[in-house]
Amino acid sequence: MRKVVLYIAISTDGFIARKDGSVDWLPEGGEDYGYNQFMETVDTVLLGRTTYDQLFTFNIEYPYKEKKNYVFTRKTTGKSSEYAEFESEPISLVKRLKQEPGKDIFLVGGAKLFQSLLKEGLVDEMILFIIPHLLGEGIPLFANINEAEIDIVESTKYDTGVVKIHYRINR
Amino acid sequence: MRKVVLYIAISTDGFIARKDGSVDWLPEGGEDYGYNQFMETVDTVLLGRTTYDQLFTFNIEYPYKEKKNYVFTRKTTGKSSEYAEFESEPISLVKRLKQEPGKDIFLVGGAKLFQSLLKEGLVDEMILFIIPHLLGEGIPLFANINEAEIDIVESTKYDTGVVKIHYRINR
Repeated sequence: MRKVVLYIAISTDGFIARKDGSVDWLPEGGEDYGYNQFMETVDTVLLGRTTYDQLFTFNIEYPYKEKKNYVFTRKTTGKSSEYAEFESEPISLVKRLKQEPGKDIFLVGGAKLFQSLLKEGLVDEMILFIIPHLLGEGIPLFANINEAEIDIVESTKYDTGVVKIHYRINR
Repeated sequence: MRKVVLYIAISTDGFIARKDGSVDWLPEGGEDYGYNQFMETVDTVLLGRTTYDQLFTFNIEYPYKEKKNYVFTRKTTGKSSEYAEFESEPISLVKRLKQEPGKDIFLVGGAKLFQSLLKEGLVDEMILFIIPHLLGEGIPLFANINEAEIDIVESTKYDTGVVKIHYRINR
């Protein structure tokens, strides 16, 4: 069965963004943190609406053009875009996607989408990139979740000070 | 100058204990995670009152007997114990201790003591042991703190799934 994999950067104090969504504290350029290799393992991308909209503020080409994109939002009417299908029911859709043939599924974020999928047992792995920075406040990755055993798959320290920890979530 | 070093286990979602203070989710036995080596670098131990009291619930010998122990509490009267001096003013005491000659200073916890020392720029290093477990709720290590740049010193992955990340806090 296809896996749903969260691949995300978090501050050392556990935030994925500042309160206004900004990620100016992420390290810049040079190191790709295994991103290109990871992208070859997935053919589908899941995003919350805020995360999707924010991609268009970065003044970059849409990064997931070559994948099937699903964006979750309460207001789907007429909103499917050039790049993504807009959907309102992440749980049922992700359950269906996992049964279909294909590569793995990249869960981009945000935190709320992750949390709702995690609660339903629909997240298989988390690849966390722990950035050496304390934000003090922001959008926490882990909130409103249940207790869970997780196993480490591997951990890598990068020269940039970032530590990757790859976990498998047990059920 | 002597360094104040936090050496602490946290769940993957950033908690140091369950809400009731229990740490039953910590991995058991076998691996010492460099603890004995670390203990040789310190001669002084700082604890919050709740953390100190909890040590006596574990049915073990007091673990920091060979160090100078300071316990911070609002109610100091008549409370200095066989093992520790009870103090009410962590900021001024730690500022003084850092100026005195000696080995480094082990900040055991809890979270509130860490947070108040961090805010005053009195924590030099953090050695975090990230336990492969999601607690869902508990006592967060990072709360009420300010934004800060930190540098990685080193990271180690243990066979138990625990990842150690050692940080230096910049000022």
